[in-house]
Amino acid sequence: MNGAESLVHSLLKSGVDTCFSNPGTSEMHFVAALDRIPGMRCVLGLFEGVVTGAADGYARMAGKPAATLLHCGPGLANGLSNLHNARRAATPIVNIVGDHATYHRPLDAPLTADTEGWARGVSGWVRTAVDVRTVGADAAAAIQAAKIAPGQIATLILPSDTSWNEGGIVAEALPAVPTPTASPNQVEEAAAALRRGGRGIVLLLGGAGLSEEGLAIAHRISAATGCRVIAQGSNGRMARGQGRLPVDRVPYVVDVAVKFMEGTQHLILAGSRKPVTFFAYPNKVQTSVPEGAEIHVLARAEQDIVEALARLADELNCPKVAPPDNGPRPEAGKGALTPESVAATVGALMPENAVVADESVSYGRGFFANTRAAPPHDWLNVTGGSIGGGMPMATGAAIGAPGRRVINLQADGSAMYTVQSLWTQAREKLDVTTVLLSNRKYAILLGELANVGANPGRTALDMMDLGNPDIDWPRLAGSMGVEAARTDTADGFADLLAHSLKRPGPFLIELLI
Amino acid sequence: MNGAESLVHSLLKSGVDTCFSNPGTSEMHFVAALDRIPGMRCVLGLFEGVVTGAADGYARMAGKPAATLLHCGPGLANGLSNLHNARRAATPIVNIVGDHATYHRPLDAPLTADTEGWARGVSGWVRTAVDVRTVGADAAAAIQAAKIAPGQIATLILPSDTSWNEGGIVAEALPAVPTPTASPNQVEEAAAALRRGGRGIVLLLGGAGLSEEGLAIAHRISAATGCRVIAQGSNGRMARGQGRLPVDRVPYVVDVAVKFMEGTQHLILAGSRKPVTFFAYPNKVQTSVPEGAEIHVLARAEQDIVEALARLADELNCPKVAPPDNGPRPEAGKGALTPESVAATVGALMPENAVVADESVSYGRGFFANTRAAPPHDWLNVTGGSIGGGMPMATGAAIGAPGRRVINLQADGSAMYTVQSLWTQAREKLDVTTVLLSNRKYAILLGELANVGANPGRTALDMMDLGNPDIDWPRLAGSMGVEAARTDTADGFADLLAHSLKRPGPFLIELLI
Repeated sequence: MNGAESLVHSLLKSGVDTCFSNPGTSEMHFVAALDRIPGMRCVLGLFEGVVTGAADGYARMAGKPAATLLHCGPGLANGLSNLHNARRAATPIVNIVGDHATYHRPLDAPLTADTEGWARGVSGWVRTAVDVRTVGADAAAAIQAAKIAPGQIATLILPSDTSWNEGGIVAEALPAVPTPTASPNQVEEAAAALRRGGRGIVLLLGGAGLSEEGLAIAHRISAATGCRVIAQGSNGRMARGQGRLPVDRVPYVVDVAVKFMEGTQHLILAGSRKPVTFFAYPNKVQTSVPEGAEIHVLARAEQDIVEALARLADELNCPKVAPPDNGPRPEAGKGALTPESVAATVGALMPENAVVADESVSYGRGFFANTRAAPPHDWLNVTGGSIGGGMPMATGAAIGAPGRRVINLQADGSAMYTVQSLWTQAREKLDVTTVLLSNRKYAILLGELANVGANPGRTALDMMDLGNPDIDWPRLAGSMGVEAARTDTADGFADLLAHSLKRPGPFLIELLI
Repeated sequence: MNGAESLVHSLLKSGVDTCFSNPGTSEMHFVAALDRIPGMRCVLGLFEGVVTGAADGYARMAGKPAATLLHCGPGLANGLSNLHNARRAATPIVNIVGDHATYHRPLDAPLTADTEGWARGVSGWVRTAVDVRTVGADAAAAIQAAKIAPGQIATLILPSDTSWNEGGIVAEALPAVPTPTASPNQVEEAAAALRRGGRGIVLLLGGAGLSEEGLAIAHRISAATGCRVIAQGSNGRMARGQGRLPVDRVPYVVDVAVKFMEGTQHLILAGSRKPVTFFAYPNKVQTSVPEGAEIHVLARAEQDIVEALARLADELNCPKVAPPDNGPRPEAGKGALTPESVAATVGALMPENAVVADESVSYGRGFFANTRAAPPHDWLNVTGGSIGGGMPMATGAAIGAPGRRVINLQADGSAMYTVQSLWTQAREKLDVTTVLLSNRKYAILLGELANVGANPGRTALDMMDLGNPDIDWPRLAGSMGVEAARTDTADGFADLLAHSLKRPGPFLIELLI
């Protein structure tokens, strides 16, 4: 058995059975091994940003890591920005990067690059395999590391000779590293704050705190104490819809966030961090938390958040309560396309258990209000602020959650970074509906330019203008095998969305907003 | 004057007047400054790999660096693979990366990443600006560094507060760092080898050795001594066509390269390095240079290569000679599309002073033979082996060489990595003809898989198959505003190429090969 075969067997032994890949020469033995060993689903991306973003979306839904397969330092580099997003979502990924043979690296052939150095910035665990006999063990260790709560990226660099040499040894799965629980002090301190009662006590959820289970406990705590429950600005995965406590996220825009956090006296962090602004701006605050507010850490991201919430609810003797009633389901929007009518249409039509992959950027800031009474669904954000995460995430989510419709709320500027995702969606016949918000500009930047007090002239406007030429999205999607259509009305959107939800496979709806 | 304004003024003072950009929030003051200060041409790319690859192509043709404008660590990450290619071409680039305000970085906001660490792997010079008063000086130093022979990437990281604070100071251009010349010993040793005479003495050119001037001297040396003249496997820029010494490149495929280098007794390096194989393979050599061949370094890459060649020719008393006659211009190909007929058509029809941006990968390995008698032109390779360099390079080359037609020989698999280039070509109305070699597979990998002795099964074949669905290139190009057509015959190609050369602006020809 060669090293590549021992690697594939070891991945399967540890339950990693999906590999998003964009291989090159140094990965040919791995690819050949996949031929000989059944059980691994391989999904090709035509660009590495698609591969890593899809691995992120997959693991968020499947609850376990996928493997990637990338080619040398430059292939890894192309995948870094979506690994950055995955890192911020604490997504487990087993990131496999093929590289030059150990004895070839010193020759500095053209593709030679600082693979380890580039990997480090996004990885909680990095190892370069050095011997064929330990490649299997390296894989098992990578998977164990990736799964350490709350999840992290484990990068295994695989020199091609460790892959092709004979002498590979299959490794069994390693035991999971136990997730630490919150200390009694952490729970006690949070309980003391909550006993004060009222809306000035704010429970800020992140990570598993936003799962169905976490939200249900938060609902009990809120019902018993009157505390406010909110979510981080962006989150890997959030349970939403009818029957689930609706929580708003800390807004992106600084002044709006400050207003949102007003009145906070005690901020209790459950798998979240103290909110900081996305950027600094001249003469603006860097956190929306009011001065003087006390911060209490119920559970850090790497602790068992749901368990801590449960102990907190027990400590406070919170009674069981009925699930929240989030009001009537919205009706599909009519007339003009507006953020409200788009959200209402999504809320009105999304099927039960839909997955929303949200990279709607500026246009989508108000989408939550009109979707909270939709059927139960999961909502995924691009977590690291690196645009181009949405379409790959939707692609991977569809593979990680088979049978569930993925609705990708997608801004046009961001979509262009990883537009090759559409090809993978077509090839794999994934149930993804892309709602392409086509405003033909970097709208967020126009807002930011105003924020810094600049009055844009011709050059600046050109730098934010995606028109000239306009991108023809139905044509672009069609060129990669994805059916598509365009509309400029809410009624047209409702018709197209309903149409896309009835048919299997991908569909793209360009909304001229 | 704020820091951003001092930066733009300082770039202009040092002759950097073109900026390829994909800005974000932290770059808004830079963008605003561009509005107020005339003289900087800004070119928007919809993905950072387009931006950095275009900066590479621009500098190769313009002979001076462009600036980039990238957004934080993840924006830089998206541009790394084409910076890697630029580094291997020794292209000067002033790589400007906006980042968080100095006082915001410690808060670890979502976009925070290891910007400096990622920059280091591709940059000869990295600096993070720390004070508004020295931003101008930092820019001047970056430009000076970028231009150090043979050229390198200088990355200036610009925290947003150093950009928006008042107190910027414009810096004058710094003097060029002198290029060292080859030592007398280097020239003497090469001369001694050449005096032996014959084809066993091989002059291997790289860098400026492949300029019109360098080739003319090499032609004299070869005429006088009978030595063989060859070029590195891939080169930043190479003068070719009628009247220029035709030199073949060291082939990619190991066995072919070994055959090519057979009989070499003395290898004289002029701006080149000892050839190593692109990858290692089980039981294959790592260099094509025969065992026992002596290596002599006439000029290292960072020395003045043309000057060293001239001194060598003087030392050998090489007489002046007529320019080489490269034979009759080929006629356009007929019948089926083959590597030979495609190259013949390009050779037959390319206008004088065309620029060929070559990312033809496997299909283009034989393109040289049928283009050596074409009118004088420049040929640019993707130098670092990271695919996705061709289309951005063509885009930038068209801006760096106005008035000259760029012909981008482009494999389909590679094209998909940075396909957003087409939009910039349309927006800037660039005279780029893309010859899209559509074989709907990663052909090079099928060869590599055979090289490692594997017999591909279904999974492996799927990982190398770009069909299912086929990409419709005319539709894809059209969606971004680039006119396009498709053909499957050599005659059809000749018609389309002639058509595209007669009209201004970009055009894409899909060749079904």
